[in-house]
Amino acid sequence: MTAFKNRQDVTGAIITARVAKGVSWGDVATAVEQSKEWTVAACLGQMAFTSVQAGKIVALFDLDETALPWLQIPPSKGSLSGAPPADPLLYRLHEIVSVFGPAIKELIHEEFGDGIMSAIDFKFEIAREANPAGDRVSLNMSGKFLPYKAF
Amino acid sequence: MTAFKNRQDVTGAIITARVAKGVSWGDVATAVEQSKEWTVAACLGQMAFTSVQAGKIVALFDLDETALPWLQIPPSKGSLSGAPPADPLLYRLHEIVSVFGPAIKELIHEEFGDGIMSAIDFKFEIAREANPAGDRVSLNMSGKFLPYKAF
Amino acid sequence: MTAFKNRQDVTGAIITARVAKGVSWGDVATAVEQSKEWTVAACLGQMAFTSVQAGKIVALFDLDETALPWLQIPPSKGSLSGAPPADPLLYRLHEIVSVFGPAIKELIHEEFGDGIMSAIDFKFEIAREANPAGDRVSLNMSGKFLPYKAF
Amino acid sequence: MTAFKNRQDVTGAIITARVAKGVSWGDVATAVEQSKEWTVAACLGQMAFTSVQAGKIVALFDLDETALPWLQIPPSKGSLSGAPPADPLLYRLHEIVSVFGPAIKELIHEEFGDGIMSAIDFKFEIAREANPAGDRVSLNMSGKFLPYKAF
Amino acid sequence: MTAFKNRQDVTGAIITARVAKGVSWGDVATAVEQSKEWTVAACLGQMAFTSVQAGKIVALFDLDETALPWLQIPPSKGSLSGAPPADPLLYRLHEIVSVFGPAIKELIHEEFGDGIMSAIDFKFEIAREANPAGDRVSLNMSGKFLPYKAF
Amino acid sequence: MTAFKNRQDVTGAIITARVAKGVSWGDVATAVEQSKEWTVAACLGQMAFTSVQAGKIVALFDLDETALPWLQIPPSKGSLSGAPPADPLLYRLHEIVSVFGPAIKELIHEEFGDGIMSAIDFKFEIAREANPAGDRVSLNMSGKFLPYKAF
Amino acid sequence: MTAFKNRQDVTGAIITARVAKGVSWGDVATAVEQSKEWTVAACLGQMAFTSVQAGKIVALFDLDETALPWLQIPPSKGSLSGAPPADPLLYRLHEIVSVFGPAIKELIHEEFGDGIMSAIDFKFEIAREANPAGDRVSLNMSGKFLPYKAF
Amino acid sequence: MTAFKNRQDVTGAIITARVAKGVSWGDVATAVEQSKEWTVAACLGQMAFTSVQAGKIVALFDLDETALPWLQIPPSKGSLSGAPPADPLLYRLHEIVSVFGPAIKELIHEEFGDGIMSAIDFKFEIAREANPAGDRVSLNMSGKFLPYKAF
Amino acid sequence: MTAFKNRQDVTGAIITARVAKGVSWGDVATAVEQSKEWTVAACLGQMAFTSVQAGKIVALFDLDETALPWLQIPPSKGSLSGAPPADPLLYRLHEIVSVFGPAIKELIHEEFGDGIMSAIDFKFEIAREANPAGDRVSLNMSGKFLPYKAF
Amino acid sequence: MTAFKNRQDVTGAIITARVAKGVSWGDVATAVEQSKEWTVAACLGQMAFTSVQAGKIVALFDLDETALPWLQIPPSKGSLSGAPPADPLLYRLHEIVSVFGPAIKELIHEEFGDGIMSAIDFKFEIAREANPAGDRVSLNMSGKFLPYKAF
Repeated sequence: MTAFKNRQDVTGAIITARVAKGVSWGDVATAVEQSKEWTVAACLGQMAFTSVQAGKIVALFDLDETALPWLQIPPSKGSLSGAPPADPLLYRLHEIVSVFGPAIKELIHEEFGDGIMSAIDFKFEIAREANPAGDRVSLNMSGKFLPYKAF
Repeated sequence: MTAFKNRQDVTGAIITARVAKGVSWGDVATAVEQSKEWTVAACLGQMAFTSVQAGKIVALFDLDETALPWLQIPPSKGSLSGAPPADPLLYRLHEIVSVFGPAIKELIHEEFGDGIMSAIDFKFEIAREANPAGDRVSLNMSGKFLPYKAF
Repeated sequence: MTAFKNRQDVTGAIITARVAKGVSWGDVATAVEQSKEWTVAACLGQMAFTSVQAGKIVALFDLDETALPWLQIPPSKGSLSGAPPADPLLYRLHEIVSVFGPAIKELIHEEFGDGIMSAIDFKFEIAREANPAGDRVSLNMSGKFLPYKAF
Repeated sequence: MTAFKNRQDVTGAIITARVAKGVSWGDVATAVEQSKEWTVAACLGQMAFTSVQAGKIVALFDLDETALPWLQIPPSKGSLSGAPPADPLLYRLHEIVSVFGPAIKELIHEEFGDGIMSAIDFKFEIAREANPAGDRVSLNMSGKFLPYKAF
Repeated sequence: MTAFKNRQDVTGAIITARVAKGVSWGDVATAVEQSKEWTVAACLGQMAFTSVQAGKIVALFDLDETALPWLQIPPSKGSLSGAPPADPLLYRLHEIVSVFGPAIKELIHEEFGDGIMSAIDFKFEIAREANPAGDRVSLNMSGKFLPYKAF
Repeated sequence: MTAFKNRQDVTGAIITARVAKGVSWGDVATAVEQSKEWTVAACLGQMAFTSVQAGKIVALFDLDETALPWLQIPPSKGSLSGAPPADPLLYRLHEIVSVFGPAIKELIHEEFGDGIMSAIDFKFEIAREANPAGDRVSLNMSGKFLPYKAF
Repeated sequence: MTAFKNRQDVTGAIITARVAKGVSWGDVATAVEQSKEWTVAACLGQMAFTSVQAGKIVALFDLDETALPWLQIPPSKGSLSGAPPADPLLYRLHEIVSVFGPAIKELIHEEFGDGIMSAIDFKFEIAREANPAGDRVSLNMSGKFLPYKAF
Repeated sequence: MTAFKNRQDVTGAIITARVAKGVSWGDVATAVEQSKEWTVAACLGQMAFTSVQAGKIVALFDLDETALPWLQIPPSKGSLSGAPPADPLLYRLHEIVSVFGPAIKELIHEEFGDGIMSAIDFKFEIAREANPAGDRVSLNMSGKFLPYKAF
Repeated sequence: MTAFKNRQDVTGAIITARVAKGVSWGDVATAVEQSKEWTVAACLGQMAFTSVQAGKIVALFDLDETALPWLQIPPSKGSLSGAPPADPLLYRLHEIVSVFGPAIKELIHEEFGDGIMSAIDFKFEIAREANPAGDRVSLNMSGKFLPYKAF
Repeated sequence: MTAFKNRQDVTGAIITARVAKGVSWGDVATAVEQSKEWTVAACLGQMAFTSVQAGKIVALFDLDETALPWLQIPPSKGSLSGAPPADPLLYRLHEIVSVFGPAIKELIHEEFGDGIMSAIDFKFEIAREANPAGDRVSLNMSGKFLPYKAF
C-alpha cells in the first residue's frame, strides 16, 4: 500500500474498493452514522469527515493510514469543469437548471425577495416514488434562504 | 403594437408587461389554471400553452394577437449557453449539480439500476420552510425513472 | 495482470485485447446474445452488462477478474467533451445534427407535439444498403416519444 | 415589405409567415414537390431551392421578390456554434452521437473499412412507430459510404 | 422618453445620465442614504433598490417612470461571462483570485474549518491609503462564514 | 527520495508533507518569519523564497535537497485556467469580482483617476471577525495605485 | 447628431470620421500634443483624454458635444475576448507572446528577479527600419519593473 | 539515463539540469554563440539548433546522446493553448496586445500599408533601462514588414 | 443611401447587391483586373483595393460614395472566431488542416528546414478537374517559404 | 519491447524511431510504395495501412509485432482539439482557411453549385517552387466535388 498524496487519490481508492468489495452506499452511511446522501457526497471527495468517521472509512475500505488526515481536511470541491456534463444522468440535472432555473429564480424572488438558496447550508434526499406508470425519482432539496442586504 | 416574429419576442413582452402591470406569478398561474412552477417556466418561453391558455395570457398582458400561435408552438428551450451561469441564484443550482451531482448519480443507480431521472416527464415545486434560524427554500423535484434496456 | 481501478481501464483493456486477438464485434455480440449495436456500445463503456454477460466478456478477452463488478455497474457515459469531435466519421454525425437537427425538431413537433425522442428508451441498427453508385450506410434509430405535460 | 439582405433574413421571414398563416410543413413539401424532411431543412436555410421551387416558396409565404435569388444560392449552413445545443430535443440527438457514436464508428469500419458515412450524399426520414407502451419516433438515415484511398 | 423594457436598459440610462450630468457616485450614495460601495453596485444593475430609493434614482437621473418597478425587482446579476475580464483593473482582481485564492482558501479553512466566506451576506469598502511611495488602494471585504454541516 | 524536476513537484511534496506531519500554516510562517498569508501563497508555488527561507522549508518538510534552487526561482504563477473555479470557496471570490468588480472599478476611478490597483505591489490579510449572528471572514487587501500616464 | 451613450459609440464615431475626412493619425497626435502611439490607443477607446485634449478631438472630428465627458472618463479597456485574435497582424503579436513569451519571462527574471514588466507604467514606439532586404517594423516597449515583495 | 522520445522531454531535461547545476542563461548563450534571447527560446523548445550547437547543449547539461537529433529538428512551437496565460508576467504581455494591439495595427498600416510584421523573420532584445523612479524593462522587437499583394 | 460606418457594412452591401443584380464573381474580377480568387477575398472584406479598383467596385454595385475610403484601408481580417466553422464546405477545409496538417508540416520541414509557408506572400487558384468518376475541385496554393534564423 | 495498447502509442514509437535512426520520410514512402504525402499522414496515425505495408513499417522501425493490427485498423483521426493550433506553420494553414475560406466557398459554389470539396476522396502534393525572390511552397489539393441533392 502506497501513501496517499492528495484527497483525489483517496477518492479513487474508495471508489475502487467499494466496487471490488461490493459494499453498498447504505452500508457506508450506516458506518459513519449520517444520511446516505451526505455520505456518498463525502466519499466522492466533496465533504470533510470527522476524525471518528475517517477512521471508519479507512477500516471499511482497508485504506492506507495516510488517508486519515486527507479525509478530515476541507477538500477542493466541484466536479464540473466548464462544459456541461456528458453523462446522461448528470446532464438531465444540468438541463433542469437550464430549462427550469429561470422559473425557480422568479419564484424564489417572488416568495423571498432578492437573495439566494444556499448551496452550503443545504441538504438533499432521494427517494423512490412508486407509480403504476413507472416509478419516479423524488429529489428533495432544502437550502437556507440568504437575503442580500444593503450596506 | 407590432406583430411578433418569434417566441423570444413574446417572452420579452410578457416579462416587460408583468413588471409594468405589477401582476404576480401567482395571478398568472390562476389565470391559466396550472401550478405556479409550470406557469412561470411556460411564460419564460420553455413550455407550450394550450389554445385556451394562450388566449388568457394574451388578454392578461394585453399582447398583440400574433402572439397566439407562438405561445402554442413547441419552443426552442434552454437558457444555459455553455459557461456556468453568472447570476448567483442560478449559480447555486449549478453548484449543487457540481458538488452533489455525482452523489445523486450513485444513489439513483443504487436504488434503480442504470438509467436516468427524466427531465421531460418531470415536475417541481417550491415552498417556504419556516425555520427559526432563518427560513429555508424547499425545492422538490419528481422525475420518472427511465432505465437503459439492452437491444 | 493488475486489478482494474475503474471502468475506463476495463474499456481500454477490451479495446486492446480485441485488436490483439482479432475478434470481430459480431463474435462479441454472439457471446453476450445481444445486437451488435448494443454490444459495441456496452464494450466501449456506455452500458452496464448483466452478471452472465460480464462473465462472458471477461472470458472472451482474458481479462482480470476484477473487471467483473465494473462491467455491471452503471458507467459514467458520453464521449464528447464540449468541442465537436475531430474524427471525420464522428464529425459527420455531428454535422448531421447541426445541418438537419432543426428540421428533425420541426417534424417531430409537427407529428407529436412538444416533447423529445428519448435517447434512453432508444435503439439503433446499422446495415449495408447495396447501391450501384456506391454502397450506402443505413442507420436506423428508434426512440420513444416523451411528451412534456403541464403540472 | 423591405428587400432581403441575406438568406438568414429570408429564413426568419419564412418561420414567421408559416406560424402566422398556420401552414403545415406537409403543405410546404407538397408545394415544392420534395420530401417533408428535405423541405423543412431547406426552409430553415440549409439547402438551395431550384428557381421553380423558390417561386413557390415566395408565393406560399407572400415574401418580397428579393427573396428569390437568396433561396437559390448555396447558403452558409450549420446551426451548432461549438457548445452542445441547449434545446432538449436537439440535445438528445447530440447525446446519441456522444453515447453511441463510437459504437457506430466501430460497426461502420467493421462492415466497410476505413472511411465515412457521407453527410452530403445523405437523406433521412422521420416516421411514427405505433407502440402500445407509447409511440416511438423512427429516424432513418442513409448516407453513401466514402472510403479513404491511398495516394 | 421611451418605456424601459428590462433592468439592463435602466442601467444603461443611469450610466449615460450620470456622465452627461456630471454627478459623482458620492452624490448618488447621499441621495439613497447607503454606502458608496453598495450604491454603485446597485446602480450598475447588481442590487434591488427599495421603493423610496428607486424614486430618488429616477428623480436624480431624470429617468422615465417605467424605471421604477425594474429598480425594485431582484436583477439577473454578474458581469463575467466565462473568460477572464479584459479590462486591466478588473483583470488585476481576477489575478488576485488566481495567484492568492488558494492561499486564502487554506487560511480560511485553517481558521474556520470546512465552509465558505459568503458572497451574499457580504460587504466591502474602498479607501485611499496615503503612502509616500505612492498612495495605495485599500479594499476591505467582510463576509459571513458559512460552514458545511453533515446531514 | 527522488530529485525534483520542477517547482510544481516541490509544491505537491509540501502539500503532502504538511498534511502527513500535521503542521499548521502558522508554524510554517513562524519558521520563515513572514506573514501567514505570504507564506501559504509561497508554499503553494506562487512566490520565490530567499535562500535562508528555502533551507527552512526543506528542513521543516524533510524535502530532498534538490528542492532548494526550485524554491528560490521565480515560479510560473496563477491557478485559474480560464473557466471559473469549481470549488465553492474559490467561486465565491470569483463571484465577488463578477458582481462587485464593476463597482470597485468605478470607485477606484472616482477616487484615483485612470489606472489600476497593483496585484504585484500588493498584500492581504485574513482575520476572524467575531459576530453574534455568526462569525465573519475579514479579508483586507492593499495594493499600490498605478496611474496610466500619457506618453 | 445624436447624443453619445457610452465610450464605445464615441470610438466608433472617431473611426468613421477619421476615414471619411482622410485625417492621418499623425495629424491627430499633433492636435492633442502627445505621441502618435498614445494618441491612437486613446482614440481607439483605451485611454482617458484631458479636458483640453477632449475638446480638440471633438473639434477635429466634428463630434457631438456629449462626447466630451466620455473622452475624459477611464474607459473599459482591452480588445481580446478570450480566443486568439483572427486578424493576421494582431495574431503575429499574439504568436510572439506564445513563441517567445517564456524566453522573455526567463530573461526578465534572470536580470531583475521575481516580478513583472508593468503594462500600466508603460510606453511603446513604432518606427520604420530601412533594410535592403525589405524594410522592418521596429517596435520598442518600455515598462517599469515591479518586484514581488514578501509581506 | 533513458533515451529521449520527443523534444518536449529534452526541454524538460534542460530546464531541470540548468536549475540543478546553477548555469545562467548568459552562460548557455556564450556556449552556443548566439544572443541570450534566441538561446533561451531555443532551449525552451521553440527553435532548432545546428549540429554543433546541439552538441554543446548536450555537453553543457550532461544530456543523453539521444537528445542530439531532437535538438536539430524543427519543433512543434507555441506555448499558449487558447485561454490567456495565467502567469502575471506573461499576462502583462498578453494585455499589451489586448490594450495596445489595435493601435499598433493602425500605425503599422499608416506607415507601411496593408500587411504584417513578420513573427518569423523576427528578433528581439531585452535590456535594463536604469531609472531613478525604478528601473525599467526595455523590450525591443524587429520584424520584417510583409505586404499583402494582389494576385 | 446611408453613409458607411465601417468596412463590414460595405462588405454586407456588396454581398446584397451582387445577389440582387445577379453579377458573377468573374464579372467583378474582370472589372478590377485581378484574379477571381483575390477579387472575391477582397470583396468579402479581407483585402484592400487600390483607389481605381475601389471606384470600379462602387460603380459596379451602385454603392454610396462613402464606401470609397473603406475599400482602400487595410481591413480587420479573418472569419474564424475560435470554434471550428459549422458550414460543411468550410469545415472540410478545417478538417484537411486537422487530418493532413501535421503531415504537411513534416514534409515542408524535410524539404525546407525550420520555417513556415507564408500566408501573406501567398496566392491560390481554384479550378475544375474533369473526371469521369465525378469532377474534382483543384485548389492550388503557393506561399513563400520563410525560414527562422538565429539571432 | 512492450506490447502496444493503441494506435497512438504506435504513432509515438514511429516518430521516436524515425528521428533516432535518421530515416527520411522519402525512405518510408519508398518502402510502402505510396506518395510521401499519404505515407506521412498514415505514419502520423491518420490512415490505415494494408497488411503488407504494416509489415514493412514494423520492419523499417523495428517495432514490436503487436503494432501490426493497430496499423491496419481505421484510426481515430484529427489533430485539432477546438482552439486554433499554436504551432506557427500549422497556424498559417488555419489562417488561410480563416482569411481565404469564404472566398474559396464562393468560387466553388459559382463553379459547381451547392456542395463541398470532399476531404475523404482527397489527395494533396507538396513541391518546392524555385523563385529568385525566395523559394515558395506549392501545396496542391484535389478533392471530389460532392453535390447536395434534394430528396
